[in-house]
Amino acid sequence: MALSFPFSAIVGQEEMKLAILISAIDPSIGGVLVFGDRGTGKSTTVRALAALLPPMEAVTGCPYGCAPDKMAGLCDACTASDKPKTRQVPVPVVDMPLGVTEDRVVGALDLEKALTQGEKAFEPGLLARAHRGFLYIDEVNLLEDHLVDLLLDVAASGENVVEREGLSIRHPARFVLIGSGNPEEGELRPQLLDRFGLSVEIRTPEDLPTRIDVVKRRDEFEKDPEAFTKKYQRHDAKLRKQLIAGRALLPEVKVPDALLERAATLCLSLGTDGLRGELTLIRASRALAAFEGDKVVTDDHLKRVAPPALRHRLRRNVLDDAGSSTRVARAIEEMFGA
Amino acid sequence: MALSFPFSAIVGQEEMKLAILISAIDPSIGGVLVFGDRGTGKSTTVRALAALLPPMEAVTGCPYGCAPDKMAGLCDACTASDKPKTRQVPVPVVDMPLGVTEDRVVGALDLEKALTQGEKAFEPGLLARAHRGFLYIDEVNLLEDHLVDLLLDVAASGENVVEREGLSIRHPARFVLIGSGNPEEGELRPQLLDRFGLSVEIRTPEDLPTRIDVVKRRDEFEKDPEAFTKKYQRHDAKLRKQLIAGRALLPEVKVPDALLERAATLCLSLGTDGLRGELTLIRASRALAAFEGDKVVTDDHLKRVAPPALRHRLRRNVLDDAGSSTRVARAIEEMFGA
Amino acid sequence: MALSFPFSAIVGQEEMKLAILISAIDPSIGGVLVFGDRGTGKSTTVRALAALLPPMEAVTGCPYGCAPDKMAGLCDACTASDKPKTRQVPVPVVDMPLGVTEDRVVGALDLEKALTQGEKAFEPGLLARAHRGFLYIDEVNLLEDHLVDLLLDVAASGENVVEREGLSIRHPARFVLIGSGNPEEGELRPQLLDRFGLSVEIRTPEDLPTRIDVVKRRDEFEKDPEAFTKKYQRHDAKLRKQLIAGRALLPEVKVPDALLERAATLCLSLGTDGLRGELTLIRASRALAAFEGDKVVTDDHLKRVAPPALRHRLRRNVLDDAGSSTRVARAIEEMFGA
Amino acid sequence: MALSFPFSAIVGQEEMKLAILISAIDPSIGGVLVFGDRGTGKSTTVRALAALLPPMEAVTGCPYGCAPDKMAGLCDACTASDKPKTRQVPVPVVDMPLGVTEDRVVGALDLEKALTQGEKAFEPGLLARAHRGFLYIDEVNLLEDHLVDLLLDVAASGENVVEREGLSIRHPARFVLIGSGNPEEGELRPQLLDRFGLSVEIRTPEDLPTRIDVVKRRDEFEKDPEAFTKKYQRHDAKLRKQLIAGRALLPEVKVPDALLERAATLCLSLGTDGLRGELTLIRASRALAAFEGDKVVTDDHLKRVAPPALRHRLRRNVLDDAGSSTRVARAIEEMFGA
Amino acid sequence: MALSFPFSAIVGQEEMKLAILISAIDPSIGGVLVFGDRGTGKSTTVRALAALLPPMEAVTGCPYGCAPDKMAGLCDACTASDKPKTRQVPVPVVDMPLGVTEDRVVGALDLEKALTQGEKAFEPGLLARAHRGFLYIDEVNLLEDHLVDLLLDVAASGENVVEREGLSIRHPARFVLIGSGNPEEGELRPQLLDRFGLSVEIRTPEDLPTRIDVVKRRDEFEKDPEAFTKKYQRHDAKLRKQLIAGRALLPEVKVPDALLERAATLCLSLGTDGLRGELTLIRASRALAAFEGDKVVTDDHLKRVAPPALRHRLRRNVLDDAGSSTRVARAIEEMFGA
Amino acid sequence: MALSFPFSAIVGQEEMKLAILISAIDPSIGGVLVFGDRGTGKSTTVRALAALLPPMEAVTGCPYGCAPDKMAGLCDACTASDKPKTRQVPVPVVDMPLGVTEDRVVGALDLEKALTQGEKAFEPGLLARAHRGFLYIDEVNLLEDHLVDLLLDVAASGENVVEREGLSIRHPARFVLIGSGNPEEGELRPQLLDRFGLSVEIRTPEDLPTRIDVVKRRDEFEKDPEAFTKKYQRHDAKLRKQLIAGRALLPEVKVPDALLERAATLCLSLGTDGLRGELTLIRASRALAAFEGDKVVTDDHLKRVAPPALRHRLRRNVLDDAGSSTRVARAIEEMFGA
Repeated sequence: MALSFPFSAIVGQEEMKLAILISAIDPSIGGVLVFGDRGTGKSTTVRALAALLPPMEAVTGCPYGCAPDKMAGLCDACTASDKPKTRQVPVPVVDMPLGVTEDRVVGALDLEKALTQGEKAFEPGLLARAHRGFLYIDEVNLLEDHLVDLLLDVAASGENVVEREGLSIRHPARFVLIGSGNPEEGELRPQLLDRFGLSVEIRTPEDLPTRIDVVKRRDEFEKDPEAFTKKYQRHDAKLRKQLIAGRALLPEVKVPDALLERAATLCLSLGTDGLRGELTLIRASRALAAFEGDKVVTDDHLKRVAPPALRHRLRRNVLDDAGSSTRVARAIEEMFGA
Repeated sequence: MALSFPFSAIVGQEEMKLAILISAIDPSIGGVLVFGDRGTGKSTTVRALAALLPPMEAVTGCPYGCAPDKMAGLCDACTASDKPKTRQVPVPVVDMPLGVTEDRVVGALDLEKALTQGEKAFEPGLLARAHRGFLYIDEVNLLEDHLVDLLLDVAASGENVVEREGLSIRHPARFVLIGSGNPEEGELRPQLLDRFGLSVEIRTPEDLPTRIDVVKRRDEFEKDPEAFTKKYQRHDAKLRKQLIAGRALLPEVKVPDALLERAATLCLSLGTDGLRGELTLIRASRALAAFEGDKVVTDDHLKRVAPPALRHRLRRNVLDDAGSSTRVARAIEEMFGA
Repeated sequence: MALSFPFSAIVGQEEMKLAILISAIDPSIGGVLVFGDRGTGKSTTVRALAALLPPMEAVTGCPYGCAPDKMAGLCDACTASDKPKTRQVPVPVVDMPLGVTEDRVVGALDLEKALTQGEKAFEPGLLARAHRGFLYIDEVNLLEDHLVDLLLDVAASGENVVEREGLSIRHPARFVLIGSGNPEEGELRPQLLDRFGLSVEIRTPEDLPTRIDVVKRRDEFEKDPEAFTKKYQRHDAKLRKQLIAGRALLPEVKVPDALLERAATLCLSLGTDGLRGELTLIRASRALAAFEGDKVVTDDHLKRVAPPALRHRLRRNVLDDAGSSTRVARAIEEMFGA
Repeated sequence: MALSFPFSAIVGQEEMKLAILISAIDPSIGGVLVFGDRGTGKSTTVRALAALLPPMEAVTGCPYGCAPDKMAGLCDACTASDKPKTRQVPVPVVDMPLGVTEDRVVGALDLEKALTQGEKAFEPGLLARAHRGFLYIDEVNLLEDHLVDLLLDVAASGENVVEREGLSIRHPARFVLIGSGNPEEGELRPQLLDRFGLSVEIRTPEDLPTRIDVVKRRDEFEKDPEAFTKKYQRHDAKLRKQLIAGRALLPEVKVPDALLERAATLCLSLGTDGLRGELTLIRASRALAAFEGDKVVTDDHLKRVAPPALRHRLRRNVLDDAGSSTRVARAIEEMFGA
Repeated sequence: MALSFPFSAIVGQEEMKLAILISAIDPSIGGVLVFGDRGTGKSTTVRALAALLPPMEAVTGCPYGCAPDKMAGLCDACTASDKPKTRQVPVPVVDMPLGVTEDRVVGALDLEKALTQGEKAFEPGLLARAHRGFLYIDEVNLLEDHLVDLLLDVAASGENVVEREGLSIRHPARFVLIGSGNPEEGELRPQLLDRFGLSVEIRTPEDLPTRIDVVKRRDEFEKDPEAFTKKYQRHDAKLRKQLIAGRALLPEVKVPDALLERAATLCLSLGTDGLRGELTLIRASRALAAFEGDKVVTDDHLKRVAPPALRHRLRRNVLDDAGSSTRVARAIEEMFGA
Repeated sequence: MALSFPFSAIVGQEEMKLAILISAIDPSIGGVLVFGDRGTGKSTTVRALAALLPPMEAVTGCPYGCAPDKMAGLCDACTASDKPKTRQVPVPVVDMPLGVTEDRVVGALDLEKALTQGEKAFEPGLLARAHRGFLYIDEVNLLEDHLVDLLLDVAASGENVVEREGLSIRHPARFVLIGSGNPEEGELRPQLLDRFGLSVEIRTPEDLPTRIDVVKRRDEFEKDPEAFTKKYQRHDAKLRKQLIAGRALLPEVKVPDALLERAATLCLSLGTDGLRGELTLIRASRALAAFEGDKVVTDDHLKRVAPPALRHRLRRNVLDDAGSSTRVARAIEEMFGA
């Protein structure tokens, strides 16, 4: 297996890195939408994070890579099995190709078995392979709406339900959905935008030293991946520990009532539709607290995740043509002071 | 099976809850169309109501989940069988995925059996699964018109007739059709609008305490579904009893002639096309009366169901650009006084 | 089998009822096109008339429901058979679903037999099922033109000829074609309009007592179909007799030369294209006379059927923007006096 | 078999009748295009002419209905056979349904044989059935251009060549192609127009006695087809003889050089593209002469067929907005005097 | 086999005849595009030329009709075979039907063999049949661009390469591509225009004697093909000899450097894109010289082929709205004098 | 096998030749996009370069033509095999036909094996065939975007991953992608443009001697390919040696920090999106250095590859309407002086 670029060697792009990290802590946050220039390392970051994570313990022979843990959601075979054997597998990163069919995504009837053995077997799709890892969609705005919708549904519920061609299959599919897109090439329907948990904007760095640094590291990595990876080994190990600890801490983190109120007030003042804004704000704050080892969510956590959690949920305001990021920042400032 | 959010824990959204409840009392009212903001708990409400209902007694092995009761409409096999065994099954809620094919909805030839055994068997579709429960269509305005039409036909007749590929199947399919849609994303043809029984408009709550309450309950539920469900157990049990009683009472509820006249006058003054307005008004009033334990339909029942029953049946009036809800309210006020 | 609403309990809509009745007397008139508001009982009327008719004597096992009568047009099997057994079957009413395929309408190769037994068998379609009854198309203006064309061809010739996939089948298919449509949702090509025998316009009744009456009867019927049907039994029986007598009388009814001349003069003054106007006028007048027990067609019969027979055959007249109905009425008045 | 309306009972429409008659004398003229009002008896005329013709002598079992005559073009089987048995069959009239597939028209692989017997057999199409008869296309302007093109190719060459799906079949297909169309509903490409041999325009008759006569005869025929047919038997028999004599005479009819010159001068003065105009003019004049028993083509023959032969080949002339018929008439008048 | 109209009996149309003749001398010139009026004998000319050519010596049983000559390009089977038997076959003329599929053109998997014998065999397409002859496309501007492209590729390379459905076939396919089109009905992309070797424009003759002559000969031919063909036998025989001699001479014809320079200067002054203009000019001049028995290409040859070789390669020149033909003629005149 | 035109006999077009040469040194540069006039020898140049390269050592029987060298990326079978036999094969040049399907490009299920042997085998596609060679796409702007995307993905990663129809295949696919296009016929999306490594613009030569030279050489080659090839043998051999040496030297070439800085500054001043510009600049400079035998990349290398590496990455600048080439040239001049 080829080596990935080390996560800790990635220069800048802090907001994107944070959003992906807290989504890895709590996948139910609902995915990350990355807007911005091409060639800014989106795909590299996702792959780096996956490689950073420790190999997963997965049931041997299970097509969904179930964890040997009832709480995590098991497929039917694993539920039935008592003490299944397991093996270590790397955290999956699945790329969604443009032009992919729904069949390939959700899984379909295994035609070969149907034709040769007259038997209805299920052939798992990309969602099965992404279970417990990452699903990456480049140029999500070019994917058909109903597929995006379907992916968001599964990402939210953690379960893939297939009802077609006489199949009735249900298997766990918990993953972090990462979509990237260039708003200049076609927007997502607001209906879909709102269903992504977090959104971040990234730009090509404009200062010379950063740019040189990026190119140099990239070139150094490509010439000798092993040496380069070794150089960042320690930083990566530290981050890995922090992630594992965060995941373990998450269920214990408390959200004070005052914080709930602040979250609601913020959303109300921004006029977000529905209540997904508040829910995401709470979850993202809690995941951030867990990642940083805090057992109680604070205003600081809230303030830091508010921009990625709310920016894409604002209605266009004809009286206020400030960008979404600016409007969120202003609302935070009004609430907490500058 | 995952626990549903308790119906009685749902904050606000009274008109939607009422419309769904009276549709559950009398499914022949013809479905509910829910317009409004995203993220306002439409799907949650439907699922909650289904979970509220007592498990149904269904014939064991019947693919349509027939009730062991001739009056309720039986499939051919159950009609033929004398004293079929039954088992308890939960009330179904079926989601209609966007991009679904007609085959999948109405059922189709079982290709596997056809190919391997040379036999024409019917493979039931989503309509079969929805029998005696709920069929939920998110973004109904994005579904193809002929599918919406078909769903409304079946919902109205309580029977699914399949005539294709040499199959000639007829099975009971009584369900409450719930469609949700955002009028900003494409309207339904008036021809279809008019065929829905009731319509409601929902909005994101604008007062802070309500919003906090919603988010808090949701978060509390997700952290410990069992404890949360227990907390609302008693309220849910009471509502369940009321529903069961209402269904039993329905056939006995009387509609006085004066009330019929008032319904017709109301429709005439609003200029609704055809007579579906009156018919729905009568049926909805009667279902409401039954739900509330009243044996006679009163003006009060009529007034309360008139907005959801008529709002979507008004022609555009160029001389009166008040919204449909306002126009219905005004007509009610003129008739009964404010 | 569910009970139909009794024909004689239908309130108002006299022109539609008359058009359907005379089409049932002489199906070669070529179908009825019903324009107008939704929810005005079009489908109910058709079903009621079919239920009114006495059960038909049909050859047992014949897939086309042939009458045991050579004159009525027999399928090949029935022609070959000498004294076939018969049974009683209800008069069929077939609904044409939107989105139906041509295969399903005209019949097609029975794929199952072809695949399993290597034999070319014909699987009859909706036209076979409609033989000797009614074919109802809701929203005919939304059906593909070539299907409408095909239906009109068969309705006119009384025979369905299938030449496809190596099949060469010809079977009788005499039925009354009823199409309904809302001219606001897309017009029929004039080429097709002209091929319908009769056309009627229906409106939602505007007077209160009628509306109340409709809703009341409908509600009464739905609460206890059997009791309601009984109440109108006698009226229906009388009408049934009149229909049967009319059909028997039809071949004997005479059309005086002077009446032919009046029909031609009327069409000439209205400038209808072609001579289908005259032909339909004569046939419809004769059917009306037969229905009313008259052996000679009179001016009165002509005057009464002229509007439904001619209204849809007028060219748009830029100098005269009166509606079609008004123009026909005016021409009748000019000819016969007011 | 149902009786056809007798040809000699058809009232008026002389130009159409003439065009079809001379096409029946010489099918290589290339078909007739009939423009005009609906309901003017186009289809009736074609069917009547076919019924008028004597039954054809056809090789028993030949799927193309080959004549037992080498000169007429034989299929391969009939060419191989020495003295094939024959039987009498009626002259075919084939209707081209709108929406027909190319497979159905030209013939295709017999799928049943291919699947069950693993053998490539040809299943003849509508062109095979039309051999030696008539092919009628209602609303030819609604048929796909490439199909019209294909039909004109075959009509011109008298041979159907099928090269597809590994088949390589060639069979005789000589027929008179009759297309009808309403120019208001979509024009034919000039490229196609020009490939029809003759074109005629028909109108609804405007004088009362004619109209009454048409309707009366039609009605009389429908009430008692046998009696009506008998009444016109003698006229039909006379016409039949004339047709048979004309076909026999055709090869002997001479075209004087002066007439050729006049035909060319006429086309040049009208500015028709290409030389199909002259060729058709000569052929049609010759067929008319043969039909009328003349052994030499005269100016009179030329003048009479010039309108149907040239009318549809004129370019639009911006300086002369007279209709095509007027322009042809004027050119004839200038050449021969009024 | 039906007789073709004799080439030497074709009246006028000299440029088209010359272009087709020199393409028959050197097929690598790249085809002829014929623009112009319909009914001007394009198809007749192609067929006449093919019939003029002596029958080809072809390997018996070879599906591509390989010549028994290694230099001419052989298919794999013929390459393997040592001294294959041959037979005489006529030079093929293949018509490309509108709406043809790519499968049919290039050849495809033989489905019958695949299904019945489980074997991947190649079923040659129209390109195989056209080998060593002519491929005629009527209305080339109505063919899909990618098919035109494919045909031009094969015509240029003399080889058909099929890579699809697991087949990997390569067979010789040298033919003269003749496309006809009416520029009023849709233009070819310049990218495609430029890939045709030669282009000619034809018009309906405007003088009376020519027109009469064409029609007379045509009519004479059709009445007695054999007698007519005999009449022109000697002229055809002479032309045939000239063609055979030209083909043999071609490899020996010299192109002087001065002529190359003149060709390049001409193209440069006309501003043709790329260098296909020069290459075609040289090849066409050389083929013309060979046809006329000259061993050295002269200015006269160049001048005569320049219009068909360059006319379709000019960019639109906004400052010079003379037609392409005029611009080429002017450039020739400027170079060589009038 | 036909001989290719010798690379060293190609007149002019220096930038295109250089771009293709350095891509052949380092295929990870990401392909070359050639814009410009038709008929300028693009395809000839690619084919000539491939023919110039020495035959490759490839594993016998390997469908991907794996090199017997673990470092180069092996397919699974070759990885498993210990000391595979090899044979010499020419460097492949694969043409991507317009209208090609994705199946054909990436490879697909071998249907024959699936049907006859019930076995899922992979049938390699064009990407497999292009491994270690060139993939040429004429008119890349007419190819579907998702295919271009896919090709760029594979070209960048050197690996083809197939996940479809139950196949899960991964094989090496390192090739130089050459796309040609005419910007007048439809532009590529900027998103795709940016993913090509290099871009060059070519024009028809405008000076007479060059044009004559091109045509003369072409003609000379076609008349006697062997003699012509011999004439340029020595030049080609020299170039071949240089290429082989360059490939070997590449891993050792050093990029000084100052040069990295200059590359970044150049991109920053031109405002290219993302950092692909810098990366390509570095790689292309290094490949050029290797090609020229230099062990350290210098400013001169950078300056020479900057136009093809950056020209297609500029945003449209409304204040500066100079062409892209001019803007790149100006930026270089500003940095290094004229």
